[in-house]
Amino acid sequence: MMSFSAYFPIWDKLTKDQQNRISDVVEFRTVTKGTIIHDSSAECLGLITIRSGQLRSFILSEDGREITINRLFEYDTSLLSASCVMPDMQFNVMIEAEKDSEFWSIPACLFKNIMDESIAVSNYARSLLSSNFSELMWLMEQIMWKSFDKRLAAFLLEEASIEGTNCLKITHEIIANHMGTAREVVTRMLRYFQNEGMVRLTRGTIEITDEVKLNKIQNL
Amino acid sequence: MMSFSAYFPIWDKLTKDQQNRISDVVEFRTVTKGTIIHDSSAECLGLITIRSGQLRSFILSEDGREITINRLFEYDTSLLSASCVMPDMQFNVMIEAEKDSEFWSIPACLFKNIMDESIAVSNYARSLLSSNFSELMWLMEQIMWKSFDKRLAAFLLEEASIEGTNCLKITHEIIANHMGTAREVVTRMLRYFQNEGMVRLTRGTIEITDEVKLNKIQNL
Repeated sequence: MMSFSAYFPIWDKLTKDQQNRISDVVEFRTVTKGTIIHDSSAECLGLITIRSGQLRSFILSEDGREITINRLFEYDTSLLSASCVMPDMQFNVMIEAEKDSEFWSIPACLFKNIMDESIAVSNYARSLLSSNFSELMWLMEQIMWKSFDKRLAAFLLEEASIEGTNCLKITHEIIANHMGTAREVVTRMLRYFQNEGMVRLTRGTIEITDEVKLNKIQNL
Repeated sequence: MMSFSAYFPIWDKLTKDQQNRISDVVEFRTVTKGTIIHDSSAECLGLITIRSGQLRSFILSEDGREITINRLFEYDTSLLSASCVMPDMQFNVMIEAEKDSEFWSIPACLFKNIMDESIAVSNYARSLLSSNFSELMWLMEQIMWKSFDKRLAAFLLEEASIEGTNCLKITHEIIANHMGTAREVVTRMLRYFQNEGMVRLTRGTIEITDEVKLNKIQNL
């Protein structure tokens, strides 16, 4: 538990009693890449705090298309998997491990109880929701107002920054799932980027060969 | 002030002292249709509570396109106009009066202080944000996965329900602003609806002539 307390952002703002109640039930889990750790039809996962790895939240349409809402990294905490205890949160979000990951989960009911008795926890939950709302607003603006070339350039640059390399191992299908579009649309735009000398495409990888130019597209 | 206390949803959960601090500074305003009551560049409006009329929150792109985020009616409260005191809320939302309206505003700083000292207020703010987040998720799903004919049918039916009439006085331009698209796109689809016998278009009005059929399109 020493470890969880170091990762949970407001541990020091909890009372001894609240810390104990959390320690008694917090669950540590290790999942492999590709695991769906939360979907709306399953039981409620609760509040999650990431120890290592990388997770993504996304929504899924009836016909199987996806769009990424946000990404979670080491030290991040997410409330989206605790929406079951929040009557105002009516939506279906899924969370999957993009890499082998480790995380803790605090059962939704316990978190709700503590939120109802602690201003610090309630305000923290509000701040998490504010961030989620801002992310969603940003994403909406991207989708509404930005053309697909800019969104794709921004996506590739963000991936390169997350992975720390300009040689991305990612399929066109996966990019399409992040961006809420079809694989063909991604492939067509990537070929255009390749013709312009900004990327080099090989089977299963996309290498960014002209970051400056890609950056210009993004900010055009 | 008797009146404000009847409209503010958590008035009874405030202490006498908090009620007094709010009463001292709450501002009552009357605005005419079309007034922009909040935009991100102006000073912070604070928390608003609607007494009468109709407001809408929307985002605006650099090239002037709009999309409606939500609508506020009598007894509704909105935090979006208090985002200035919430460091996690980084986005530009505008609020305009769609009809002549009356509302109260509580200055953002006072609301933040009370939120930091009262669990009831903090939880209420969280619940407002949850609702906003859910609305935005719904809107995003609409935009991402629903074709424009379904969205337009849903919009017309919602307008008819809000206005209590099947004869809508609304321009194609205004509909385009709600839906984040161009006027031409709206006009083209409305003409298609007219050819199908679902609406009748005259200058400045759209009359819904076949609600059942329009409803079918929406749920197709």
